[in-house]
Amino acid sequence: MSLQVIPVPIKKEVQKGDDLVGLFVSAFKDIQDGDIIVIAQKVISKQEGRQVELAQVIPSMLSVGLASEYNRDPKLIEVILSEANRIVRLESGIIITETKHGFVCANSGVDESNLKPGFATMLPQNPDKSASDFAQGIMEKSHKKVAVIISDTFGRPFREGQTNVAIGVFGILPIENYEGKKDTHGRILRVTAIAQTDELCGAAELVMKKTANCPFAVIRNYSFESSSGTISQIIRSKQTDLFR
Amino acid sequence: MSLQVIPVPIKKEVQKGDDLVGLFVSAFKDIQDGDIIVIAQKVISKQEGRQVELAQVIPSMLSVGLASEYNRDPKLIEVILSEANRIVRLESGIIITETKHGFVCANSGVDESNLKPGFATMLPQNPDKSASDFAQGIMEKSHKKVAVIISDTFGRPFREGQTNVAIGVFGILPIENYEGKKDTHGRILRVTAIAQTDELCGAAELVMKKTANCPFAVIRNYSFESSSGTISQIIRSKQTDLFR
Repeated sequence: MSLQVIPVPIKKEVQKGDDLVGLFVSAFKDIQDGDIIVIAQKVISKQEGRQVELAQVIPSMLSVGLASEYNRDPKLIEVILSEANRIVRLESGIIITETKHGFVCANSGVDESNLKPGFATMLPQNPDKSASDFAQGIMEKSHKKVAVIISDTFGRPFREGQTNVAIGVFGILPIENYEGKKDTHGRILRVTAIAQTDELCGAAELVMKKTANCPFAVIRNYSFESSSGTISQIIRSKQTDLFR
Repeated sequence: MSLQVIPVPIKKEVQKGDDLVGLFVSAFKDIQDGDIIVIAQKVISKQEGRQVELAQVIPSMLSVGLASEYNRDPKLIEVILSEANRIVRLESGIIITETKHGFVCANSGVDESNLKPGFATMLPQNPDKSASDFAQGIMEKSHKKVAVIISDTFGRPFREGQTNVAIGVFGILPIENYEGKKDTHGRILRVTAIAQTDELCGAAELVMKKTANCPFAVIRNYSFESSSGTISQIIRSKQTDLFR
């Protein structure tokens, strides 16, 4: 059976406090059991008020110093650092941090695109909760069982370009474990753990970027074990990460 | 319009010299203009004879030393090193190399799964050419214009699990460039380059892993600029890679 990835555009620009569930169900009438809804981080951040007016930010000495060295905005650097556990790499004005959630990404996920000038969004504070709240709302309205993934666009080492990855999940495990499963020759498989929610986010991105104002995608016909996963399962531990 | 990802299983275990184009067109009759065919690296390597019997390998002193330190097979280590430009990380028996193509991955992509015991496959020597040859064959038989991506499963820093990524392309650019494009507020977009062929490989993997003996997937309704890309465009240059 073929997998379907359906873009769900909306007409409204999302504001703080908006009813995202209502916006989704108005735009997509045909929700079915087993559907996976992928949501762009940006609309979650806007809806949750995770947005800052840079003019209101008072940068620290550190932020002023870094900004002057790399010709960047000290107020934006301040927001980036305030969202970080630590700086992972700092070179040529590129700031790679570990966010408070444990994600390693550029600028702590702080982002000025698709916003009024002078504003920046931060990642949701608890993206698993954002996913769960949205899923509960959908399931109450539709009486269908769905999984929800919050997605953001991250760069990566070694390879050019960005891909969409999961930053919050509800009802699906981030990693599908093949451990102990045998291959066609009866040997234990080398690849034991597929980052299925990251691949689902990548698939969603393929339709979202081609459609104007499209913060949602629905993925249908993907069979998965319904499970109370948390995104922390995808964060590589210090012990197994050779690139910290 | 929704994106479709269609698994294409085959009945035969691929051997050196097999007619992959013939196998594909027997298994999938409905090829259309604009379809993207994703092929698992493993069948390309088998078909091209990129397979080695470990008993025939004579390990170097270096391979013997590394194998003894990490309790691994010196013959397998020899194959891994012979496929590498350099070792990127070596820790707890995990060998991350840069392959001769420039990919950074575990074990130079050398893999023992889905093979007779005692054998290992290596990555295709020129995966772009593998993609191009396959595409030419399909286009000759079907008179439809297709793109082809060769896909392999790589781990990555920071995040647990593996995802499928592109290692060879024909007829599609690895990176879709949004540079200079404006967002909904007229600002230049922060995300300027989407690794579309990696996301397409991830989408393909979602159906391939759920289907027995499924080395192919067809992706339909993805609009892209037909272009003579090469996979080298996705290899991050030393200058912009902070994690070498």
